[in-house]
Amino acid sequence: MATTQLSDAEIDRRLAELPGWQRCEGRLLRTFEFADFVAAFGWMTRVAIIAEKLDHHPDWKNVYRRVEVELSTHDAGGITERDLTVAAEMSRLAQLG
Amino acid sequence: MATTQLSDAEIDRRLAELPGWQRCEGRLLRTFEFADFVAAFGWMTRVAIIAEKLDHHPDWKNVYRRVEVELSTHDAGGITERDLTVAAEMSRLAQLG
Repeated sequence: MATTQLSDAEIDRRLAELPGWQRCEGRLLRTFEFADFVAAFGWMTRVAIIAEKLDHHPDWKNVYRRVEVELSTHDAGGITERDLTVAAEMSRLAQLG
Repeated sequence: MATTQLSDAEIDRRLAELPGWQRCEGRLLRTFEFADFVAAFGWMTRVAIIAEKLDHHPDWKNVYRRVEVELSTHDAGGITERDLTVAAEMSRLAQLG
């Protein structure tokens, strides 16, 4: 199920395909850097639409061209498929021009 | 000048017109709450465009329908007119439907 907490081993296996993401205390963490604020917020806007569609929203902090992201599934008390799905989308969207 | 650090007394005087904002260690702080994520991110998008236009960007953290904002002017080492301008715009935009 999408809302079942995954094992650390399973998460680490999946993160091998998601460079830059770290597992820390039941959350997925990554800091994204962009060319400038417009690029950073443009990426956030794309992510926001996908996150709303998936009904799974990040905790994120933006400081000019940087965005620090935390993903976790509060209902499950840890990391689930839904976090990995949003993480993969974030990585994919960051690679677009 | 817009980039001159303001005195605490002057900031407090100005904040009387900006309910919800607090002065703390050279920064202006406020947490905004909205009906849901779409409302929160919609507000952030409006603010982002104004911030870019003013070339003065907030540090902000979004968690679903909440946005925690910090404003300061790094070059001045404190709070300036520019922070008060962005704070006023944020407050104004939060009151729109």
